[in-house]
This record gives sequence, structure tokens and C-alpha cells, in this order.
Amino acid sequence: MAPVDPSSDATVVETDAVVIGAGPVGLWQVFQCGLLGLRCHVVDVLPEVGGQCIELYADKLLYDIPGLPPTCGRDFAAQLQQQVQPFEPVFHLGCQVTALTRQADGRFDLSTSGCSQVLRCRHVFIAAGVGAFLPRKLTLAGLDRYAPASVTYHQLPTDGVSGRHVVIVGGEDAALQMAVDLASGSDGRSDNDRPASVTLLHRRDQFSSDDGILLARFDLLRRSGLLQVCIGQPVEPVESDGPGGPVLAGLRIAPPEGDEFTLPLDRLIVCLGLSPRLGPIADWGLVMERKQLTVDTARFETSVPGIHAVGDVVTYPGKRKLIACGFHEAILAAFAAAERDRGGPVPLEYTTSSKTLQGRLGVRDSVTNAS
Amino acid sequence: MAPVDPSSDATVVETDAVVIGAGPVGLWQVFQCGLLGLRCHVVDVLPEVGGQCIELYADKLLYDIPGLPPTCGRDFAAQLQQQVQPFEPVFHLGCQVTALTRQADGRFDLSTSGCSQVLRCRHVFIAAGVGAFLPRKLTLAGLDRYAPASVTYHQLPTDGVSGRHVVIVGGEDAALQMAVDLASGSDGRSDNDRPASVTLLHRRDQFSSDDGILLARFDLLRRSGLLQVCIGQPVEPVESDGPGGPVLAGLRIAPPEGDEFTLPLDRLIVCLGLSPRLGPIADWGLVMERKQLTVDTARFETSVPGIHAVGDVVTYPGKRKLIACGFHEAILAAFAAAERDRGGPVPLEYTTSSKTLQGRLGVRDSVTNAS
Ligand SMILES: Cc1cc2nc3c(=O)[nH]c(=O)nc-3n(C[C@H](O)[C@H](O)[C@H](O)COP(=O)(O)OP(=O)(O)OC[C@H]3O[C@@H](n4cnc5c(N)ncnc54)[C@H](O)[C@@H]3O)c2cc1C
Ligand SMILES: Cc1cc2nc3c(=O)[nH]c(=O)nc-3n(C[C@H](O)[C@H](O)[C@H](O)COP(=O)(O)OP(=O)(O)OC[C@H]3O[C@@H](n4cnc5c(N)ncnc54)[C@H](O)[C@@H]3O)c2cc1C
Repeated sequence: MAPVDPSSDATVVETDAVVIGAGPVGLWQVFQCGLLGLRCHVVDVLPEVGGQCIELYADKLLYDIPGLPPTCGRDFAAQLQQQVQPFEPVFHLGCQVTALTRQADGRFDLSTSGCSQVLRCRHVFIAAGVGAFLPRKLTLAGLDRYAPASVTYHQLPTDGVSGRHVVIVGGEDAALQMAVDLASGSDGRSDNDRPASVTLLHRRDQFSSDDGILLARFDLLRRSGLLQVCIGQPVEPVESDGPGGPVLAGLRIAPPEGDEFTLPLDRLIVCLGLSPRLGPIADWGLVMERKQLTVDTARFETSVPGIHAVGDVVTYPGKRKLIACGFHEAILAAFAAAERDRGGPVPLEYTTSSKTLQGRLGVRDSVTNAS
Repeated sequence: MAPVDPSSDATVVETDAVVIGAGPVGLWQVFQCGLLGLRCHVVDVLPEVGGQCIELYADKLLYDIPGLPPTCGRDFAAQLQQQVQPFEPVFHLGCQVTALTRQADGRFDLSTSGCSQVLRCRHVFIAAGVGAFLPRKLTLAGLDRYAPASVTYHQLPTDGVSGRHVVIVGGEDAALQMAVDLASGSDGRSDNDRPASVTLLHRRDQFSSDDGILLARFDLLRRSGLLQVCIGQPVEPVESDGPGGPVLAGLRIAPPEGDEFTLPLDRLIVCLGLSPRLGPIADWGLVMERKQLTVDTARFETSVPGIHAVGDVVTYPGKRKLIACGFHEAILAAFAAAERDRGGPVPLEYTTSSKTLQGRLGVRDSVTNAS
């Protein structure tokens, strides 16, 4: 396990449990912990909850959620988010969990990139799915040194684009959208705040999108000369001297045919899509099998006691990467954590009848009134 | 395993799978089998689907079904029933599965009481919950010989009640309701079709119900003399000679204090509630532990290959008797059955994206139209 950086002056926040990942299974983990009286903090690198449901099929219908009529990924995530409200989880969105260490008293410290707090807890639930959805990197030696002033991923460079020669890398929806927005001014900036030029760089002259309107707007801007297209693979950054040191001035491009050339630019926006990466979790020394965490099927615990794992991130005999399977895993993991706290069996109670559970759900009063 | 009665001339119906129990988990088993292309027949001893959801908390809210706003047992069962519709399961309601035998070709024959068909299938899924909900018996020597002409459980005797002295046994809602209906004529029968008298027999003069209106109606009928109450324990039936042989003429009653006496009657309706009994399933030679079927957690298979078990009826390390856990079990059991048919792995497909699954769900066309 990687140590938390001792030099950092992050505040330590104490809680019962930390759930890594706010996908459907992570959300359900919060619910089950809540029923058993465990408070949770939830960390997700994405800016919103829902995991794959939001990231990969927000508008497509899920048919196999038991008891639910066909519901799109977005609505399903929203319903789960609604359902965990009574337990007041603390969400840390836009934060990637990077390091996990064990304290002398057995508790865990989790630190993140993007959030200055260290989360200290007795129980960790890894619900990291297929991993953190991070922008696909453009790996050119030396390019990182210009980020985020002149080079960014899926967003505008922090030094702005006004009067600049902007190049966007990519050939799918996100890249097309960024190019169209900047070239047409539909990103909302005023006329004297506009780029000097907008160029889309892609390895071939073919663009894939299901969005016919987006493709049509792209073609129009291209034909009217407001948007350039450059075909080829970027090979290395080209720099020049600026007042404050070297600045990014272009990219060497290898076209499909012919000789390399330099594409001049001052701003580079990489839009190569998001790709899931398990990232740091893979380095915590937990036993894994083919990039999945191995867990037992009674407690859904990893090789380290106190660290549970549920959902798409786990493997065990018979495992199917389905949402309804993750829900079951989260239930058993929550009971295992509660039993560890209590040092013995935790009796099963029903939400339909238990006063304790209804109290935690905040519905006890309304039930009393109704009867 | 008890043999199917060879003398019976039951028709044999062939199907891919038989699900024993139409509780929430049995219904979900049908869904998962359907997604994998397996057709199911479903047998339940109750007259409607839903198992415990209908039998024990039809009007209470379930809070812990993932993604579902609080829903009462009845509505939840109805939603599951709706969800399995595309797979056209054949329901055999009001039938108890009694016997299971294995054929020479490895298939199973299931016979039931209440249904003349023998169901022949490759896969059996036992989703029998806490057992079949059967009426609690009044065990008095010799009483059975009058059923169902003069003695019945939770329903009217087949010889009718018109002009008869009817005694109802029990002290809870079902008994009170039956007594109120018969005494007040609110069971819909015409005036000249009414009982000569209606008596409720209970061991003490105390009646438990959450239904205030029912209790009030009961008190009113009792005070107005339309309904008698007899306090005591039935000891033995009393018979007299009728034209066609002996008929039931009364019950010997042991009151809380004082001497036994005879309560005259011609019709007896026993309403002592339903109690779950695993019944014949416990005699099929499957390995059990404390009245639960033991299963593995990869295939949810019993000790007999081809016979799976899911939901409240099973036990394994970590098992929690919750609906969401049963759903997971049904998924893995369905995959195990499909793999047995195929003789190898069955790849995972998603309802959001798979044409095959959407075809089986009958939604493929609407999806094509929408896109
Ligand atoms: C196209 C498609 C269709 C599908 N259709 C269905 C279907 O019809 N039915 C069904 O049951 N399943 C379906 N699935 C599968 C289903 O989406 C997954 O089983 C489910 O999303 C798993 O949930 P999860 O919470 O385990 O993981 P995820 O949904 O992957 O969520 C994990 C979350 O963890 C975050 N995370 C990971 N690592 C870190 C870190 N280090 N720090 C911070 N955050 C991190 C990620 O950003 C992500 O939000 C489908 C999947 C796909 C790809
Ligand atoms: C008061 C109460 C409240 C509850 N509240 C909750 C809650 O809030 N959340 C939750 O997740 N769970 C709750 N539960 C538990 C939940 O109801 C069970 O986990 C669930 O019903 C199990 O489903 P099942 O399909 O396995 O079995 P069951 O619902 O028991 O269904 C089994 C069916 O099989 C039939 N059957 C059995 N044997 C035979 C046979 N030989 N032939 C024909 N039919 C047969 C029975 O008639 C029955 O209909 C509660 C239970 C109770 C008692």
C-alpha cells in the first residue's frame, strides 16, 4: 500500500466507512451500510454519480433491474441517489482515490487527488467497477509540461483560447463537439474572445458519430473554412521561446502518406475519450486475478480484512458483471462490516417491519401516522 | 425422491424448466431463464403470485429494493409479474408440488396435487421460500372424513351453509372476517340462502386484529345476537346418523373453566391462518441444513445436479434472507442451467445493448424505431 504523503497538511476526516466509486453498486453499498447504522463517505473521479450507467448508457434502457420498468441509465442512477439520501452520505466527486494506508489502530487512511482531505475509516468498500474513467492520454514526450495552461483534456486550456491557434485532437463526438463549439462560437464567448483558428487533428479523414446534426454542422463549418481538418498522427511537440520561457508552438505530424510536417498552434485540446483504469487500487497489494480483486462470497472481503470489494471490480467463482449481482454483494459486505464492529452476529431486520430500520430511513413517523 | 404415482393417467407436459414457488425470487428466476432462452412453468400452492410479499405484507412498504421507491408487497409482486410477461411463463397456481423423479434421460418429472399434469423438464429451480403456505390444521381424530362437504379451511364447505348451523374456528382477521361476512350477509348470498346461525369458536374471549372497522362490525353483530361466540378448545367431533350415513353434528368443547359441553353444528369452517411448510420438498433426498437446502454460491445448485435452489429456501455461508439476495442467486442459477444445456460458457450480454436479449424481451422493434 502506498503511504499517504506525510508532508501534506491535509485535514483528516473521520467516518465509519469509505466507498470508492459512486456507480450503482457503490450507491447501494451506502444504502446497506446506512441501514446497519454505518455512515459513509463516497469518492468518485467523475463529476456525477452513476458510474457506467451514466458514462456508457445514460440514455439507453435497462430491462433487467428486478421490479423496475425499463429505465434509462441516467434515471436509474438518479433513483439510487435519491434512495441513499436518508443516510446523508458525503460525496467527494471529481476526486480519484490514490493512496490507502493502515493506521496503527487498524483504521484506514485514504487520500485522493482532487480533494485535500484524508478520509479515515474502519471499513473500506471498493466499488470501483472497471476503474476510474479518465481521459485517454496523448503520450508525447515533453507535452505534459504545457498542461494545463496550453494543453488540456476535454476542456479549455486554463490560459484561454482568445486569439489563439487551437488544435483539437480526436475523431469522435467529444472532439467534434469541441471543434464545432469553438469554430462556430456556440460555446458562448463573445466575438473578440474567439480563437484565431480552429483545427481538428485526426489520424484519418473519417469521423464517427451517431449524431447526424453534429456531423452536418461540422461539415458546414469545414466547407465554409471556419474549421480546418488536419490528417495525421502527432509525433512530438514543437516549442519556441516565449517571454517567460519555452512555449508550445506546434506539433510534428506524420501524415498517412508523405513526409512529416509541423502544424503550428498555441493551444492543444485532447479529446480522445475516457477510458477506465483501475489505477492506484491495483497497487495496494490486494490479491487480484486478471485485473479483478478476488473476494470470498460470504463477506465480499479482499485479502486485507476490513477492505471489502463489490460490483464489477471483483471476481469469484460464478461472478457475472451485472448490476443485480453487485447489489447482493453490497448487502453481504455491509453485514460483514457491521459484524466486525459488533464482534458477533448482526440479526436480520426487515425494512417493512423494523422500527430501527425505519428510524434510520427517516420514515418511522409517517408510518406511525398512517396506521 | 418420491416416485410419481405410475397409476395416474396425468398428461405429461414438456418444458425447459420448472420453477417451484412464485414468490419474488421464483418470478425473477423466470425472468433470468427467459433472457437465456429457457421457457418455464411455475407452480405455486397459493392462488396468486408473490409469495411472502402477498401473504405477509401486501400492504406494507418495502424500502430496500434497489432503485425502487417505497412499494408495498402487492405492487412489487405485480411489477415482477408484469416484468416476466414477455417470456410467457405458464403458471400453475393453487397446486402444490408433491413428487419429483428423475427419468432415464436425466430429465425430471414433477407432479403436483391440484393439477393433473406431470411437468417434465431439464432444469428445476426450487424457490419455495419458507415453504408452501397451507392452512393450519385442526387436528381432531376423525374430523377429516367430513371434509370438504361439511368441514373446510378458509372457505365455505362444498355442501353449502344455507339453513345450517355454522361454526368458525379462529380468533384472527381471517376468522373474524368469515364470521362477519356470514352473519351480516355481506358475503353476497340472498336472504333465503343464509345460515341458521353463525358461531365463532375461539380459545379465549380476546380477538386480535389491526383492522378497527372489522372489530367494530364484529362487536355490533355479536351484541345484536346475529353472531354467537363460544369460548373453549375443541376436543372431538360429535356425529349423528344422517340419511346417507353419519354426519357431523357438533364439537365437544373444553371451556377455560368448568365442564366439557357439546356445541351443536352442521358446518365447520377452520380459519386458523396459513403456516408455511416445506412439505414434500424436504423428502426428496436433497442435502439440507436446518430445514434449508444447501447450495454452492457459483451455481446455486443443490446436491442433485440439475436441481437449483434460490431465495429463502437455501443456505450457504453469509446467506441473508432478503429479496435482493435471492435475485442474485436466480441470475447465477439461470446461467448455470444455460451452461449445462450448452456444455460450455455462456457469454454475458446486456439488456441495454444486446439484440438477442431485446428480441427475447420483445422490445427490439421499438428500439429500432426510436434510434
Ligand atoms: C454498454 C453496457 C451496457 C450494460 N447493460 C447492463 C444491463 O442491461 N444490465 C446490467 O445489470 N448491467 C449492465 N451493464 C453492466 C453494469 O453497468 C455494471 O455491472 C455496473 O455498472 C457495475 O457497477 P459498479 O458500481 O460496480 O461499477 P461502475 O458502474 O463501473 O462504477 C465504478 C465507479 O468507480 C469510480 N472509480 C473507479 N476507480 C476509482 C478511484 N480510484 N477513485 C475514485 N473513483 C473511482 C468510477 O469513476 C466509476 O464511477 C452494462 C455495461 C455496459 C458497459
Ligand atoms: C414480515 C416480513 C417482512 C419482510 N420484509 C422484507 C424487506 O423489507 N426486504 C426484503 O428484502 N425482504 C423482506 N422479507 C423477506 C422476503 O419476503 C423474502 O426474502 C422473500 O419473500 C423470499 O422470496 P422467495 O421467492 O424465496 O420465497 P417466498 O416469498 O416465501 O415464496 C415461496 C413460494 O413458494 C411456494 N411454495 C413453497 N413450497 C411449494 C410447493 N411444494 N409447491 C408449490 N408451491 C410452493 C409458496 O406458496 C410461496 O408462494 C420480509 C419477510 C417477512 C416475513
